[in-house]
Amino acid sequence: MTTPSKPFNRLLLTGAAGGLGKILRERIKPWANIIRVSDIAEMDAAGDNEEVIRCDLSDKSAVFALMEGVDAVLHFGGISTENTFEAIMSANIQGTYNLYEAIHKHGVKRVVFASSNHTVGYYKTTDYIDANSPRRPDSMYGISKCFGEDLSRYYYDHCGIETVCLRIGSSFPEPINKRMMVTYFSYDDLVEMLRCSLFAPRVGHTIAFGMSNNPAAWWDNRYASHLGYQAKDSSTQFADKFPDTADYPAKDDITTIYQGGGFLLKTPQYK
Amino acid sequence: MTTPSKPFNRLLLTGAAGGLGKILRERIKPWANIIRVSDIAEMDAAGDNEEVIRCDLSDKSAVFALMEGVDAVLHFGGISTENTFEAIMSANIQGTYNLYEAIHKHGVKRVVFASSNHTVGYYKTTDYIDANSPRRPDSMYGISKCFGEDLSRYYYDHCGIETVCLRIGSSFPEPINKRMMVTYFSYDDLVEMLRCSLFAPRVGHTIAFGMSNNPAAWWDNRYASHLGYQAKDSSTQFADKFPDTADYPAKDDITTIYQGGGFLLKTPQYK
Amino acid sequence: MTTPSKPFNRLLLTGAAGGLGKILRERIKPWANIIRVSDIAEMDAAGDNEEVIRCDLSDKSAVFALMEGVDAVLHFGGISTENTFEAIMSANIQGTYNLYEAIHKHGVKRVVFASSNHTVGYYKTTDYIDANSPRRPDSMYGISKCFGEDLSRYYYDHCGIETVCLRIGSSFPEPINKRMMVTYFSYDDLVEMLRCSLFAPRVGHTIAFGMSNNPAAWWDNRYASHLGYQAKDSSTQFADKFPDTADYPAKDDITTIYQGGGFLLKTPQYK
Amino acid sequence: MTTPSKPFNRLLLTGAAGGLGKILRERIKPWANIIRVSDIAEMDAAGDNEEVIRCDLSDKSAVFALMEGVDAVLHFGGISTENTFEAIMSANIQGTYNLYEAIHKHGVKRVVFASSNHTVGYYKTTDYIDANSPRRPDSMYGISKCFGEDLSRYYYDHCGIETVCLRIGSSFPEPINKRMMVTYFSYDDLVEMLRCSLFAPRVGHTIAFGMSNNPAAWWDNRYASHLGYQAKDSSTQFADKFPDTADYPAKDDITTIYQGGGFLLKTPQYK
Amino acid sequence: MTTPSKPFNRLLLTGAAGGLGKILRERIKPWANIIRVSDIAEMDAAGDNEEVIRCDLSDKSAVFALMEGVDAVLHFGGISTENTFEAIMSANIQGTYNLYEAIHKHGVKRVVFASSNHTVGYYKTTDYIDANSPRRPDSMYGISKCFGEDLSRYYYDHCGIETVCLRIGSSFPEPINKRMMVTYFSYDDLVEMLRCSLFAPRVGHTIAFGMSNNPAAWWDNRYASHLGYQAKDSSTQFADKFPDTADYPAKDDITTIYQGGGFLLKTPQYK
Amino acid sequence: MTTPSKPFNRLLLTGAAGGLGKILRERIKPWANIIRVSDIAEMDAAGDNEEVIRCDLSDKSAVFALMEGVDAVLHFGGISTENTFEAIMSANIQGTYNLYEAIHKHGVKRVVFASSNHTVGYYKTTDYIDANSPRRPDSMYGISKCFGEDLSRYYYDHCGIETVCLRIGSSFPEPINKRMMVTYFSYDDLVEMLRCSLFAPRVGHTIAFGMSNNPAAWWDNRYASHLGYQAKDSSTQFADKFPDTADYPAKDDITTIYQGGGFLLKTPQYK
Repeated sequence: MTTPSKPFNRLLLTGAAGGLGKILRERIKPWANIIRVSDIAEMDAAGDNEEVIRCDLSDKSAVFALMEGVDAVLHFGGISTENTFEAIMSANIQGTYNLYEAIHKHGVKRVVFASSNHTVGYYKTTDYIDANSPRRPDSMYGISKCFGEDLSRYYYDHCGIETVCLRIGSSFPEPINKRMMVTYFSYDDLVEMLRCSLFAPRVGHTIAFGMSNNPAAWWDNRYASHLGYQAKDSSTQFADKFPDTADYPAKDDITTIYQGGGFLLKTPQYK
Repeated sequence: MTTPSKPFNRLLLTGAAGGLGKILRERIKPWANIIRVSDIAEMDAAGDNEEVIRCDLSDKSAVFALMEGVDAVLHFGGISTENTFEAIMSANIQGTYNLYEAIHKHGVKRVVFASSNHTVGYYKTTDYIDANSPRRPDSMYGISKCFGEDLSRYYYDHCGIETVCLRIGSSFPEPINKRMMVTYFSYDDLVEMLRCSLFAPRVGHTIAFGMSNNPAAWWDNRYASHLGYQAKDSSTQFADKFPDTADYPAKDDITTIYQGGGFLLKTPQYK
Repeated sequence: MTTPSKPFNRLLLTGAAGGLGKILRERIKPWANIIRVSDIAEMDAAGDNEEVIRCDLSDKSAVFALMEGVDAVLHFGGISTENTFEAIMSANIQGTYNLYEAIHKHGVKRVVFASSNHTVGYYKTTDYIDANSPRRPDSMYGISKCFGEDLSRYYYDHCGIETVCLRIGSSFPEPINKRMMVTYFSYDDLVEMLRCSLFAPRVGHTIAFGMSNNPAAWWDNRYASHLGYQAKDSSTQFADKFPDTADYPAKDDITTIYQGGGFLLKTPQYK
Repeated sequence: MTTPSKPFNRLLLTGAAGGLGKILRERIKPWANIIRVSDIAEMDAAGDNEEVIRCDLSDKSAVFALMEGVDAVLHFGGISTENTFEAIMSANIQGTYNLYEAIHKHGVKRVVFASSNHTVGYYKTTDYIDANSPRRPDSMYGISKCFGEDLSRYYYDHCGIETVCLRIGSSFPEPINKRMMVTYFSYDDLVEMLRCSLFAPRVGHTIAFGMSNNPAAWWDNRYASHLGYQAKDSSTQFADKFPDTADYPAKDDITTIYQGGGFLLKTPQYK
Repeated sequence: MTTPSKPFNRLLLTGAAGGLGKILRERIKPWANIIRVSDIAEMDAAGDNEEVIRCDLSDKSAVFALMEGVDAVLHFGGISTENTFEAIMSANIQGTYNLYEAIHKHGVKRVVFASSNHTVGYYKTTDYIDANSPRRPDSMYGISKCFGEDLSRYYYDHCGIETVCLRIGSSFPEPINKRMMVTYFSYDDLVEMLRCSLFAPRVGHTIAFGMSNNPAAWWDNRYASHLGYQAKDSSTQFADKFPDTADYPAKDDITTIYQGGGFLLKTPQYK
Repeated sequence: MTTPSKPFNRLLLTGAAGGLGKILRERIKPWANIIRVSDIAEMDAAGDNEEVIRCDLSDKSAVFALMEGVDAVLHFGGISTENTFEAIMSANIQGTYNLYEAIHKHGVKRVVFASSNHTVGYYKTTDYIDANSPRRPDSMYGISKCFGEDLSRYYYDHCGIETVCLRIGSSFPEPINKRMMVTYFSYDDLVEMLRCSLFAPRVGHTIAFGMSNNPAAWWDNRYASHLGYQAKDSSTQFADKFPDTADYPAKDDITTIYQGGGFLLKTPQYK
């Protein structure tokens, strides 16, 4: 039954069985009367005001059915780490295309696309970039996220569908290596940034970096200033986990040279 | 009688009968021994250390008389909303010219010119601009403020008269629509920014955006960094007035597409 | 009688009694069946396919009558050198406003506005600027041209009227001082740039610098690249008039320091 | 048999049965001892020093076989106009991935990738952009070319494979509409730009715009200055085909507003 | 004796007898087992875990001996104010060259070079610059710091030695003039910025501005964002020392016009 | 005896015994009544209207004597290739300082300083830079030229002495390797650029790249547009000397990766 006070009637979350999907499933409840969750994998049974629909995003007709009656989408589905190109093409390229076709068909008005910092992972850790900096993907995964950003730009320019592409940093309970002191994105800040992305009066096509207010930063969010996102958390609370040390990495340690970190090692055969 | 501890002997506030003028009249007292207030409309009688001079800014000789003995000027006079071109030309174009001629003649050293965000109202609400971004006026009013900025630039380049052009956002007791959550400029912050503009050792010709520390922002004040202005207030305190909602404006709602908001509707005959 | 092969039926040239107006009156004949010429001063009698209408641009109803049946406008009218502010305000500010109101009312589709390099005359002669560089007017005349640029931008953003603002350099038979070796704009090149401005399929609101292909340059026309203008002439042909000399100007010679040249001396009372 | 004087031993041209492929097949002969040509469609029989291999680029093992013994690649294969997403994904996304995997495996040193101006077709015709401007694809075809640019960037950053992405304008015998006066890219200039791209000592990952020296331009090739490409031709030779006319397109004619031209109409169901 | 928990074994501080050197000598103890301090002048006797080595930096062999066994360097040595060119050349140019040769020879991994805001002192106080802004030195001292920045860039590009060039503002107990309200850099913030510079995993060659979080600012530290420096102090705590006043400096007071302040007066013979 | 028609009375050329110095000695005769030539090495005897003064630039009093009666300076003296730091410091750092002190003392009005592309030699050959790009010296020689640029900037900002810093490419009779096809600077073009630098009415402090109109380019001379320099020559005339070849340099061949070319190998001990 519809609770009139909720902003949306039906909000779709894809990738609901994934790491972030599970976290978000609970947190986004205030934003809609019905939360529709979807994944290719099995999910927990539907709770109150929930709809659970298992769906392979590479199946176009299934995606069209999934989108029926949906008002807004948080697209966290697809493959979220490095994998074979074919798997990524199916889930992230064909899948995201299917999703946007369905979004267009069903008149969905606002989309948040979970993009990734791995679209720009081949910038150096001494670079400071913004949303207009040319992309430097660091993996097949990163390339598929570049595709999603270009695709959603097209659907904005051509059809007027508004998307926030959120280049998520490291959204984990806490940083587990020194790199994540820079890329840390607390769950609370992620939820707040999603809230801003959904409820700002107009977002057009925005590319934003998902990060908390960490002391060191590689990314300038100036072109997302209209979102009104203000981080509440910072990785400084975990500073004790990474005490000062003179053990500098080797000069040719690409995980320290480049922003993408360990992702650059995931296809070692190339080097 | 002169109180030596006041920074200025005589400070002129034009537009003293207007909305902001009335607010400022009280607040600026610490800055001068004598506050001279002026307006085309009737004003309250002079209080202690006040001089009240009614003056039509389009009357050149009256303006020259008004400027006699003045050390610094806060120019809030003229028409402050959309009107016929002829009315605006008289009050804001001829009026501001008269003012600067008098400023030059009488050796006034520092001016704050109340410019407006409507000099750039035709930027989109998803744009992020700074003082060097080309202008995009949204009204005859906005065009007259562009004129004032160019005129004061000339008087700086040609005569060395220092002016801060303050592109005031929405200086009201509180935001009255969602747009003002971005443009809100509290009275306290306005007064603080005026203080900075008057007392910074050197301002040259500065264009600054008048806004509080609001979560969403369209304007980058980097080129006013030398002023030392730090907002104390934020529109976040009024967030409850504008709860989250999925009622996105229509795609062609120009008051949401463009920064100028409702001003774009004030000459509806054009569209 | 209409010659069907001409691009326009009626093309209006304002300022037809002025220096450039007289030159243009002959040259623009191929572009329209009827050339309507206008000035506040007396003009030569109408020739074939010409209409001569004397008109004070500050007279709104006269301007509305002038625009009747006009398809496109070359606006060279108004005051074209330094003068009193009041004279400039009447002719260039009120006058240009009247013109655009009439343009809007009568559905004129394309305008070329004769702006001036004096909108940026307070840049240094060692600066290299483009159409997005903030303005630096060097005179009341220059300020009035800034006004025209802002006004036409507004009519483009608000009403869709397309204008090319042509910041004319020095359009004379030949350079008469060393500065003009940089700013020289031959009549042939002026006519060609007007042709491009009128017949490019889309110009939006373009700011372009009017100059020939001179060896030294202060202005970058990159943002007018869509016009397709290619200068045929160059001031190099007049190089012999200004042989090499070690007579450098004095360090504080503002006519050499600033791009505006002698215009900066026209209001000597200010310095 | 190897002729030692040719720069390459074996040069692969994909898309050899396409419009440009047929043109290039003859022209590139001086650059290699053996020209291997490939297409999914039937091609003319092999001439002297030619190898003809029919190959579906979406077939990974066929592509690996195709690349055997190849020194450099001109990748003109795949779908070269708008089509269904699925067809484009197979030919241009899977196909280009297969190609780069084979390039990497076989140690090919230099690649020219036929990208397209449709990667940026949603810029306005009054915009002037360069290789670092964020992409604005205008079609599924354009999106697939964006993918190829990102993919080749990755293979450069990760594996050191050098690619020139050539955003080809309109490479036809002559312009067939007014837009092509801006985008015209003569066959001779195309061949010269390919020559520069293959033989420059180092290209890293370069994005270049393929155009002749046309009077109007939307694209700035500054970031390809190291290639040494100098256009010999210009669309001015065809100016007579498109005489001046005042028949401006309608204000909402998207083929004139946007650089992509007619491509924007190829998926009319979206608007 | 080595305490294993200290980040470095041996940290060299040059200029230890100078104003900042004395302050730092105590504060940097937590960062190394052994603090080696050096100066051309007499220093206090060595305390626990200290080594005191008197050394003239212009003496190459002495500098090579000084660097033996050193892991990281804080280079505060040399002349720190205006002086004769010859004195500065010896101490700051020859001296810094000697230092980097020794750093290279001994495999030192990280250097912090005490550069100065006087590398950019001829920017105006109304300018806002960043690390990429062209230099504008205001003195022979400033020129020698420019040299050190270029030299360390070379040792990074050529040899991979990482340096943070810290353009120190005014590091004193408190501001002693109004200029220092902008340039103030508290000792605590200096120490924190040194800590960040030494322990960030990778700094490449970074130019950073050393300043506290003061209300007015001339310098944008965006290109040092990877350091993770966050100022804790602000000159606002000293605001009462510099109350508002209308005593604007004279128009030609170069100490107020230019960022370098009083340094511009140190070679008065030039003007 | 003075010939009045010559632009200068006395023009000083330093480095007159060097490779370029010998070329220039003849070519610059039209520009002055007296050409004073100087070098540390022996020179040909004085011809008509010549003065030959042997001078070690590191000898301050000798330099002051050398400058007596001089109107303008072409400073080609000092060491022009890689050498020990000490030799470079003496000739290029101390020497250039001495020169500018003498220039200031004797009221010389215009200086051309032979800087070098080795101030930016560590940019990549795929980069495209301009005069405002941060420096990347590739050698001690390059660092000494950076020093000269900073020093001359100071003398301009502080004393008003105008200098053109000419970053000379490869000024030889013809290119002798492929790199020089990009950096070629014909003698005629060098002389023309010197002429422009000496006789432009105002140059302030200009950094310009000395190159002919070569097909490939790494350097954008936009900030020297006021000089009016137009190259007459191009390396294309030597294209036959460097035919197309697929012999790409090795990936880690730093002479091809970086603009500085062979200079990067001159201190091999560092790598």
